[in-house]
Amino acid sequence: MEQVSLRDLYKSPEDFSGKEILLKGWVKTARDSKTFGFIELNDGTYFKNVQIVYEDKLENFNEITKVSIYSSIEVEGTLVLTPEAKQPFEVKASKVSIFGKSDADYPLQKKGHSVEFLREQAYLRPRTNLFNAVFRVRSVAAYAIHEYFQNRGYVYVHSPLITANDGEGAGEMFQVTTLDLDRVASSGKVEYDRDFFGKKVGLTVTGQLEGEAYAHAFGKIYTFGPTFRAENSNTKTHAAEFWMIEPEICFCDLDGVMDIEEDMLKYIVAKTLERAPEEMAFLDKFVAPGLIEKLQKLLDSKFTRITHEEVITILKEAKVDWEFKPEYGEDIAKEHEKYITEYFNGPVFITNWPKDIKAFYMKQNPDGKTVAAVDLEVPGAGELMGGSQREEDYDKLIARMDELGMKKEGLEWYLNLRKYGTTIHGGFGMGFERLLIYLTGVDNIRDVIPFPRTPGNCEF
Amino acid sequence: MEQVSLRDLYKSPEDFSGKEILLKGWVKTARDSKTFGFIELNDGTYFKNVQIVYEDKLENFNEITKVSIYSSIEVEGTLVLTPEAKQPFEVKASKVSIFGKSDADYPLQKKGHSVEFLREQAYLRPRTNLFNAVFRVRSVAAYAIHEYFQNRGYVYVHSPLITANDGEGAGEMFQVTTLDLDRVASSGKVEYDRDFFGKKVGLTVTGQLEGEAYAHAFGKIYTFGPTFRAENSNTKTHAAEFWMIEPEICFCDLDGVMDIEEDMLKYIVAKTLERAPEEMAFLDKFVAPGLIEKLQKLLDSKFTRITHEEVITILKEAKVDWEFKPEYGEDIAKEHEKYITEYFNGPVFITNWPKDIKAFYMKQNPDGKTVAAVDLEVPGAGELMGGSQREEDYDKLIARMDELGMKKEGLEWYLNLRKYGTTIHGGFGMGFERLLIYLTGVDNIRDVIPFPRTPGNCEF
Repeated sequence: MEQVSLRDLYKSPEDFSGKEILLKGWVKTARDSKTFGFIELNDGTYFKNVQIVYEDKLENFNEITKVSIYSSIEVEGTLVLTPEAKQPFEVKASKVSIFGKSDADYPLQKKGHSVEFLREQAYLRPRTNLFNAVFRVRSVAAYAIHEYFQNRGYVYVHSPLITANDGEGAGEMFQVTTLDLDRVASSGKVEYDRDFFGKKVGLTVTGQLEGEAYAHAFGKIYTFGPTFRAENSNTKTHAAEFWMIEPEICFCDLDGVMDIEEDMLKYIVAKTLERAPEEMAFLDKFVAPGLIEKLQKLLDSKFTRITHEEVITILKEAKVDWEFKPEYGEDIAKEHEKYITEYFNGPVFITNWPKDIKAFYMKQNPDGKTVAAVDLEVPGAGELMGGSQREEDYDKLIARMDELGMKKEGLEWYLNLRKYGTTIHGGFGMGFERLLIYLTGVDNIRDVIPFPRTPGNCEF
Repeated sequence: MEQVSLRDLYKSPEDFSGKEILLKGWVKTARDSKTFGFIELNDGTYFKNVQIVYEDKLENFNEITKVSIYSSIEVEGTLVLTPEAKQPFEVKASKVSIFGKSDADYPLQKKGHSVEFLREQAYLRPRTNLFNAVFRVRSVAAYAIHEYFQNRGYVYVHSPLITANDGEGAGEMFQVTTLDLDRVASSGKVEYDRDFFGKKVGLTVTGQLEGEAYAHAFGKIYTFGPTFRAENSNTKTHAAEFWMIEPEICFCDLDGVMDIEEDMLKYIVAKTLERAPEEMAFLDKFVAPGLIEKLQKLLDSKFTRITHEEVITILKEAKVDWEFKPEYGEDIAKEHEKYITEYFNGPVFITNWPKDIKAFYMKQNPDGKTVAAVDLEVPGAGELMGGSQREEDYDKLIARMDELGMKKEGLEWYLNLRKYGTTIHGGFGMGFERLLIYLTGVDNIRDVIPFPRTPGNCEF
């Protein structure tokens, strides 16, 4: 007898109509009367369940009626199309075997648990509709990203995780060591010559610098890997461990970078809607009403492109009582981001930022005040991507580092890229979880990462 | 004028025949006579160069003749098909602009550098033919893996990198901390309550356990992410940071696991040969003669399946003076792996290993002596994948952990998977770099990782 997955079944139920099939999966719900019963079965491959109908002529009828939620079972039966019913088909069981009984203390017996409770059950929560949808979308979106870049000739680069560079000089880094801390404490000495790498190293905060090196060999590359920040923030948008996508492209200026960001985002959105329609419908209905409409609108829109200076002017002219007063030459606040995306009723690229609030490697504009940086702001999720054209001029880059009092040790290789065949080039970074918050409507980063790491939390 | 990439040019040169095009790239080689010159240009998108022909009628002819290797340039010119020449086409330049001169101290001036020298120039080495081929193959193979699993309904799971579990209890772990080690030394105390996660944590050695949890929600999943081992080994096959693929499948026994391993490997090999033909031809010619034939043969072969006991019998009967004597109940050595793949003239699955040399979570066979584990041995690369059916019985798993004196704290959730809807399930792990060694013929793991981390080495 043919074993069939729910995904295959839902793809073309007609192919199995009237046929004997074998299903293996878990009991999502069950109910029964004296002579027959129903089981909603799911094998994890598809968002919807299949209804199993069984009758008291089965020899283990009584056992089946007592089956507990999330027990694993095997069902042999005939697929019957039910065009008039709510579900398109059901399976009339000729045999139901209970394989793995779920114990009485199963934590997800009843529906309607809070997301906070489910976070504590992180190993079980993908069994719920909400998290099943979220983590299917995570997988579908990740693949769409690979597909987008691979089909356009980008090379996927695994930038290193353990590094002695501190990247942007921004975030706090986790230290990685094989020193025995008890020994450090008792000896009173930190002997880096005994450490695994012979020096102080940590977990990367960005793969961009290594990405630029590879772009200067392959023309265009992307990274997609984990990134770490030891930031002691307990907010909805901060996690200590998250995934980033960082493309770098040679022979590409700031406008080119924006073209790619816009094209990529539309591709990911389109593929997610196409490949996880059941999940997106669920999220639209129960998590973020209007989600699908918002995403559909994005597909048809042309993103606004505007300078930081113009944004400040709009904010200053707005009849709003700002908590943070907008100022030329300064960063913008969350309330400003929100206002601007609502003002333009869609995604907005903000370009040419004051150089003093941006990273050292960004291309210095002729005005001497701004850099060719761009942030993409999207409705409902704020800053989704940050990018820039990179400073390709060796002397200007050195001068900027000197201005900032940055040391060059360990970055000589990065600077050398400007000496050995430098190019007009740029790139951007997109936090994968930020994207997922935008795609799913879920508002807490802890709920889009399978096993989130935040201050004080490192379970599983 | 249309800017064209070399990849597009090589795809259909006819489309550009006689047309004016714009190329941006780097000078790979250059030579000239009094009245004309040739430049081999590459933009990184394709393995082969394009030949630029320029004449002394260009106003900056003298400047062009002096262009240094790996300078970045822009070329306007007409594409001319040259069916009689070695290369299928060339570009007759109407304009050549030098954008980024490569300095005289460029380390890769001449060809023929040793791989050891190039390792020290890790940020430049993808510009060489060898490493360009290797890292293109790395990208192509990574994508083929995603494609394989996504097209078959697997969900991609990002298992956590920072963890308090020590996974298989095998490898040594790196510790991750935000404690100030100087303070630890001066205070004489290791205060984990002040550490970021409030306890001792490290970098993961496997995502399998978390993968099993997700498989019991989605039916089948795969991970593809970095993994770490703080093993102080300076061998050709050890790196401290590497990437692993770990699929987990419910309703799947050991035979099913082997079916997937074989099918997946053939898929990756086929796609790599198809999508990186120039690179594979280069590797076949200059690195590992016979490489393509070996891989083609794999595609047509049916992998042998044999038990560990049968393998030992074959080894004992072999007329070979073994360095390590083969014994029932014991592990096999590299020399045995080699003999067995040669004996069967192809890949070999070795199953049912002595339980005492395998991990605690493997399915215990009825004989009480072996577990349902499988190693895949391939000619030339040894063990490529290791998998098993997992012990799905709660009591047997607990008993095995007790036998091994393992503590259960922190693993309760993993054990609970056997209480809440347990299934016949299995999975395997494949080291991505081990695969690349097999695919490229390159024999040192340091040469298939962009920026390798080994004891004492953490540059870039």
